[in-house]
Order: sequence, then structure tokens, then C-alpha cells
Amino acid sequence: MSPFAGSARSTGAWQHIRVSRGDGVATVTLARPEKLNALTFEAYADLRDLLAELSRERSVRALVLAGEGRGFCSGGDVEEIIGVTLGMDTAQLLDFNRMTGQVVRAIRECPFPVVAAVHGVAAGAGAVLALAADFRIADPSARFAFLFTRVGLSGGDMGAAYLLPRVIGLGHATRVLMLGDPVRAPEAERLGLISELAEEGRADERAAALARRLAEGPALAHAQTKALLTAELDMPLAAAVELDASTQALLMNSADYAEFHAAFTEKRPPKWQGK
Amino acid sequence: MSPFAGSARSTGAWQHIRVSRGDGVATVTLARPEKLNALTFEAYADLRDLLAELSRERSVRALVLAGEGRGFCSGGDVEEIIGVTLGMDTAQLLDFNRMTGQVVRAIRECPFPVVAAVHGVAAGAGAVLALAADFRIADPSARFAFLFTRVGLSGGDMGAAYLLPRVIGLGHATRVLMLGDPVRAPEAERLGLISELAEEGRADERAAALARRLAEGPALAHAQTKALLTAELDMPLAAAVELDASTQALLMNSADYAEFHAAFTEKRPPKWQGK
Amino acid sequence: MSPFAGSARSTGAWQHIRVSRGDGVATVTLARPEKLNALTFEAYADLRDLLAELSRERSVRALVLAGEGRGFCSGGDVEEIIGVTLGMDTAQLLDFNRMTGQVVRAIRECPFPVVAAVHGVAAGAGAVLALAADFRIADPSARFAFLFTRVGLSGGDMGAAYLLPRVIGLGHATRVLMLGDPVRAPEAERLGLISELAEEGRADERAAALARRLAEGPALAHAQTKALLTAELDMPLAAAVELDASTQALLMNSADYAEFHAAFTEKRPPKWQGK
Repeated sequence: MSPFAGSARSTGAWQHIRVSRGDGVATVTLARPEKLNALTFEAYADLRDLLAELSRERSVRALVLAGEGRGFCSGGDVEEIIGVTLGMDTAQLLDFNRMTGQVVRAIRECPFPVVAAVHGVAAGAGAVLALAADFRIADPSARFAFLFTRVGLSGGDMGAAYLLPRVIGLGHATRVLMLGDPVRAPEAERLGLISELAEEGRADERAAALARRLAEGPALAHAQTKALLTAELDMPLAAAVELDASTQALLMNSADYAEFHAAFTEKRPPKWQGK
Repeated sequence: MSPFAGSARSTGAWQHIRVSRGDGVATVTLARPEKLNALTFEAYADLRDLLAELSRERSVRALVLAGEGRGFCSGGDVEEIIGVTLGMDTAQLLDFNRMTGQVVRAIRECPFPVVAAVHGVAAGAGAVLALAADFRIADPSARFAFLFTRVGLSGGDMGAAYLLPRVIGLGHATRVLMLGDPVRAPEAERLGLISELAEEGRADERAAALARRLAEGPALAHAQTKALLTAELDMPLAAAVELDASTQALLMNSADYAEFHAAFTEKRPPKWQGK
Repeated sequence: MSPFAGSARSTGAWQHIRVSRGDGVATVTLARPEKLNALTFEAYADLRDLLAELSRERSVRALVLAGEGRGFCSGGDVEEIIGVTLGMDTAQLLDFNRMTGQVVRAIRECPFPVVAAVHGVAAGAGAVLALAADFRIADPSARFAFLFTRVGLSGGDMGAAYLLPRVIGLGHATRVLMLGDPVRAPEAERLGLISELAEEGRADERAAALARRLAEGPALAHAQTKALLTAELDMPLAAAVELDASTQALLMNSADYAEFHAAFTEKRPPKWQGK
């Protein structure tokens, strides 16, 4: 995403989502705890637009995505989404499913790393939101349930059939997406689905600490690392090597690279600016 | 594959292969136990044609691929294949190797999940047949031997150099394909090469149970999950997200999706039709 | 790479690199132990040209890449590389970064397997050289540090953002490249980053043994296996299956394939020629 903003004003008003900002970290909390943070049409649209908005704020250098209450996110609301889609026409169904995919693309394409803090259930769209993040920090109680086939839909929802094989391999991804069985934290760790297993009740805190570390560090280098990881999944080796070369040439003109060298020479820690 | 059938009649007569059908599950058993189910030219051709035929039977919703006797499949027969290929001209060699690859493509592209039940040896082409399946259920005695280099051929046979890195990662895949050393069940489980480790002697039974579960469930959702997993290995993220959106829009018009909602509302288990 | 040589004479004189050849194995040792084998501009250029030169020697059938002294390679020299790049113009920066990427491409594209023997530190460019190898044999003391972000640069350097997700999955690769934390041998083994964990102090010896095994075996089959693994990461399934078919048709005309059959028939071990 590009940080250049048009003239439209930011709304600042989001449904079932709480946003806070501080020291370069934006914290986005799914906040509909009485429904296990089940997503509504408005929540998908708000997540998409919020991510676009945060991408235009140069002050955001890392993002935490968390869930309030007993779990991370139980996915699309059975009544407010499944019930309503049954009455939709073909064009509306396509619009809705494109919107959910746009949230995943926004997470993969925003210019800062996204750290998902997962406790309790991450089900359906909730599991894919966590999957799309750059880091997944999970409580031992966390469970990921890609349960799309359980409601009669394809396991490939919102890019899951693209992302999951690239994270845990095609064999495990087939089993997990086809059967929809929950993947509990210990298995998720074994498969490489989580980045860090936290102590019970501490995923939010650990995610905040990681986001702070990322925001205080060479944030432009982090952002480019993310952009290259995302882009190079879809590129042949020769093109990837060329993209790496031009990216490093660019960053070798950055303030942080010069600062590293100065700090090294003066035997002091670098003061990163993220530029 | 498309289920639309032309006018050609099905043969029903297959060499060294036993086929049974029941309750939406087709069971294909390699049945040349006196030769450890070594494959002949006819067996490759028959597997290819049989998979095409089963793909046109709308009643097949899951397939078990198993081997009779002491092992799953010892691969191409040394005398009947290797010996004969030594006398072939260039065009014939290409025809033969294309045919073997067509079997793998048929397994990846048929409109139902394939469950390989592996006991004893899965060697050479036998290892690749198992690798191409969606699920691999293995006995503790199972061993996968991608031994192509041991006969002077490339480890990339029948798509193995494409599939194996996507299942177990490039590092392990290089070691396994280049050296041809057998991968025994415990290592296969650690690498993510098998979906489920069964108790000794029970892989066939567990594979049948999984196939039954898949056939009794929302089979159209399973078929589309498989199709997307296969297609999205070869697609960039944005295209994959778009394919997911149109697939879900399609399935939101399916009988099974409506049935899930009705069953949920009525607090009863859904009656899946696979449509 | 193509083994066809032009008229240019080989230099034979390389900076900070020792080369030896014997029985089909070339051993390339980074030899600047007083600087932990830190790379200079000349060392990158020499590695690139040396790999091109070895690729034209039909006698080289496997290569060992090792480091002299306390570690494998500490990456680009802070003074001689980072310091100097701060004074470079844009075109020079691009030339330098392209050159480092060419070393990685040379490792992936040379017509023989490359075995990295890693003890102690493999940091920055040193970690990527090891990552680009076909096999990584590591001492328990080995640690891989993709520390590019620590100097303000992108974790995607020399193809790392392409290669690492394909070796250890996107989740682990994101963590490792974004944070730059060292990956010690036990974790590297768990993630699939190393091919074999040696006993302490024995990685060089084990790498030499593996290279000897590869060189004494059906070396053309090994070379084609490597070429297909490299190429098929960037190809769709149908094209990969077609490439496998034409490669096997080619190798079925090779001396080693005929020799396997003769040896099998005569119940004796094959005498591989690598042709």
C-alpha cells in the first residue's frame, strides 16, 4: 500500500473495533466480546478501511491485532453473515467475498509488520486474519479452526488455500483446510503456524512487546523485509534476486544504514529513525 | 477434470488394479502382490484412464489408493519397464514419461480427495503416487523411497521435484530426492510427509474411515478445497484471493450451505448432499 | 550454467579463498580466518567467477563450501563493505548488490550439488551462502544469523526472502529475516534449515564424505535433480511434469541408466560414470 493520502477525511469511528496508537504501534482490538468477536459485514469493511488508513499514517511502524474477551475471533457471524448471504444475489455474494479477501490483502500489503495476539478461538475468518499476519503469538489455550468446510464452503477462503501451504506445507494445509479440525497451540507450534508460544494469558503482552521492539528498530528495513517476503512468494529466483539488489541499493542510502555504521564505529547502540 | 462424459464406454477391466465402489468411496488397490505391486506400462495407463473415468462418475466423492500384500508399491518394474525402455527410441521414451506424469496430474486434478493408505514400501513411482495424494495415512512400517537417482535417473520424476519441496520444504526435498535414501514413517511424520500415522496394520482401515467421512460430508466443498489448494500453488496472492472469492460466491448458492444454516437454526446436525 | 568455455583463461588466483580439487570434488574454503572469513568486494566477485569456472570443468561433480578458523563466514566486512558503500553513488550500489545476488544464483545454478559445511557463525551474506547450498551440514555450535535488519537493511538480501520461506515456511522465515535473531543448530534442525547435524568439529569431514558419495554416484542424475528442484520452484505443476518427462527421456539414454540395468541383471553394484 502507498502512504499517500487523498483528500478524504478519516472517520475514526469503527464498528466492533477499538484502535489505539502509541510510540509507533497501532493496536487494533476486535471488540465484540459478547459474540466472541464474530465479524459482521461492517467489521470486515472497517478492518479493510482502517488498515488503508493506518497505512497512510507514517507514524505507524507496527500493528498488533488482538481480540477482547474469551477468544481472538470466532469468524463470520452465523446469523448476521451466513443468514443474510442466503438471500443475496450473485453480484452481492461476489462483492462480499471480495471484501473479506481485501482485508487479507491489506494485512499482507500494509507497510508495517502485523503481530496477531491469539488466545482462545481463532475460527473461520478469524483464523485467516491471524494467518495473514506476519507474526502469530499464541497462548497455550489458542486454537485455530479453519472450519469453512463445516459450513459447506471451500477451505480456500480469503486466501487461506494460498497462504497455509506456504506456512505449514501442502500436506498439513490440505488436512487442516479440508477437514476443518481445530489446530491447538502445541500442534500449531509443531507445524510452524505460530511464531511464539506465550505463557497462558500473556499473548497480548508479548505481542505488544514485539511490536514495540519492531517500532523502535529500523522500521523501514522491517517494512521492506515484509514487502519482499510477500512479493517474492510470487516471483522466480532471478527476479527476486534483482528485487533484493535494488531494495538494498535503496536502503544503503537510508539514514538508518548510515546510523548503524556511525554507531558501530563509535561503539554505541544505533539510534534508529525508521528512515 | 471435468465430469462430462463422451460417448466412449468404460472398460471396467484393469490390469493389476482392483476397483470397488460403495457409499461415495472408490477404493483402488494395486493388486500385483507377488511383485510388491510393481507398475507395468499397462498399470500406468490404466491408473490414468481409471482416474479419468472415476472423475466422470458423480457418485465418487473420495478415493482410497492402497496396495495389496507386503507393501504399497515398489515402483516401475525393473525388467518390464527399465529393461524395455533401454530399447526405446526418443519419441517412445517421451511418451512413456509423459504417461507417468499424467497419472500424477490425474490424482491432483480429479474432483475428489485422494487418500493413500501406505504400508511397507512406497518406492520410486510408488512414492510419487502417494505424494500426489491429498492425504497419506501410513503404518509405522511404511517407508518412502524416492530412489530415482539410484537407477541413474533424475529425482524429479512425475512431478516429484515440484511436489516434494511444497510438502516438506526445499532443504529436506533436496536431500530426499538427490540421495534416494528411504524416509521411514517416524521421519516422514516429522517432515510433514504423512497426514496420519496409523497403528501397525491399520492404515487401510483408517484411510477407509477418512474417505467415508469425506464422502458423507459436504463433498462439493471438499472438492473445491482440493481444486483451490492445487491451483493456488501456482498463483500469486491477488489472483488466489479473487479465485477464493468467486468460489465462495458459487458455494453460497449450494444446497449444503443452505442446509448448514437450516441445521444450525434448528439445532440439529446437517444432512450433507455434496451439492 | 553451461559448461561450454570461451577463450578466456582461468586466473587460478583468488582472494581469501582456497580451492582444491580431487576425485570429482571441488572444495572451496573461505580463508580469511583472522576476520571470521568476512567477505570483501573481491571475495564476492571471486566466488561468482570461481563458480562459473568450476561449472565449465566437467570433472567437478560436487562442491564443498567451508570456512577456515572459528566460523563459517561472518558476512560482509563492516569496514571494507558497509563503510565503503556509504560513499557510493546509486549505480555503484546497484552493481554491488547485483554482484552478491549473482553469487547466490551461481550456487543455485551450477551443474553440481553444493554442500555447505557450517561451524560457528554463518552471518549475513554468510548465512545466505549456506542457505543457497543444496545441503547444509552443521556442527552443534553452528548458528545462522540473517542479521540484515540489524544494520538497517532489508532481510531480503541475495535472494534470502525468496529462498528461506521455501526452506522453512513463511512463518518462521518472517520471524528469522525480520528480527535477525540467530538460529542455533538445534532450532535450525527443527525448522528444516540444516540437512544433517554433525558431531562437534566434524561438519567439514561429513560434508567431504557426502560430496565424495555424490561425486562417485550417478553425477548426471544428481545434477539434473538439482536443476529440476531449482527450476520447478518457479513453474506450475503441468509444466513441471512436462520438464520431468523430457528430463527422464533424456537420462534414459544415459550410460548410467544402462549401467544400472546391467549391474542389476548381473547382481553386482553399478559402476557409475556420471554420464
